[in-house]
Amino acid sequence: MKIVVIGATGTIGSAVVKLLKQKHQVIAVSRSSGDHRADITNKTSLEAALGAIGKVDAIVSATGSAVFKPLVALTDADFERSLHDKLMGQVNIVRVGAQHILSEGSITLTSGVLAQKPVQGSAAISLVNAGLEGFGRAAALELQSARVRVNVVSPPWVKETLIVLKMDPSSGVSADEVAKAYAQSVEGNATGEIIDARKTAA
Amino acid sequence: MKIVVIGATGTIGSAVVKLLKQKHQVIAVSRSSGDHRADITNKTSLEAALGAIGKVDAIVSATGSAVFKPLVALTDADFERSLHDKLMGQVNIVRVGAQHILSEGSITLTSGVLAQKPVQGSAAISLVNAGLEGFGRAAALELQSARVRVNVVSPPWVKETLIVLKMDPSSGVSADEVAKAYAQSVEGNATGEIIDARKTAA
Repeated sequence: MKIVVIGATGTIGSAVVKLLKQKHQVIAVSRSSGDHRADITNKTSLEAALGAIGKVDAIVSATGSAVFKPLVALTDADFERSLHDKLMGQVNIVRVGAQHILSEGSITLTSGVLAQKPVQGSAAISLVNAGLEGFGRAAALELQSARVRVNVVSPPWVKETLIVLKMDPSSGVSADEVAKAYAQSVEGNATGEIIDARKTAA
Repeated sequence: MKIVVIGATGTIGSAVVKLLKQKHQVIAVSRSSGDHRADITNKTSLEAALGAIGKVDAIVSATGSAVFKPLVALTDADFERSLHDKLMGQVNIVRVGAQHILSEGSITLTSGVLAQKPVQGSAAISLVNAGLEGFGRAAALELQSARVRVNVVSPPWVKETLIVLKMDPSSGVSADEVAKAYAQSVEGNATGEIIDARKTAA
């Protein structure tokens, strides 16, 4: 398969590239490096990158940022940035990407465990992650007639991220294990699924 | 209890007012009529209305619009309007409203069954509804220390709405039945719950 990975340089993205490269042709896309560059918050930029690549079997998104801050400290700008980047950025990947997928191909987005299991400071991220899951289910339904599958991978806390945050990594799952959820979405037949990367890691 | 209902003139809102009035003092708020007027997309407007009312035991939101349109037809402006109104408008109700709730009081938001069960045309609404549920769970956690409960009621398709849309109302639940879910949120002790109004209607 020919697979585009957007956000290829991140903790999860680089693990996804490494895993998918074992069996597939992977085209790495990110904001500032990789085979092609694209800014997901800009549909023109996405269209240019995907147009240059041509039709592919799958697009995987492992990108998008949202603001982690206590609810009382979250400003209008923090919410806007979170909605604009991780949420609408990935919505854009579906809106633009659907035109660039071969029949029976797939688009895989990334949400996260905070959608269902919030922590102090996650209000904007929980909103964004849950919103992506609702959108992913709906987009899968709408794109069935175009034979494009859409799934959303929900990663748990990632060991490598917990280490960076100076938190206890023992409850985390390694990025290499999380990557298996993306491979399942790309290589399987599911659509409209929220894939819990804690389960696929087992 | 003293309860503010925002969106008091809508199909669900008016049923909620009717039910809660049987036992409580209800202050009706809506954009263009009611005891007080407020535009949920404008925090200053919300702050003015809630400030004038004074501290209350509960705020119920049964308001907010989002665009119903096929995914391929949804424009950037459609997504922006949906995020700005039903999603961030209700997020604003929590951000502003939390300061106006008496200890052990509650804020109840409205999502909808399309969060989990999309239909053709619901991509923006499914995103918004699911996002509200993720936000509600997180806000409940953050506001526990302030002794403010937060729940989200998820109404099924409402009979009265189906009739207006010229769809078969037989699978719908009446607004009066849906209102019971809001009473449960206000009168109970739950927080961080997504209350399925199909279940409370039974």
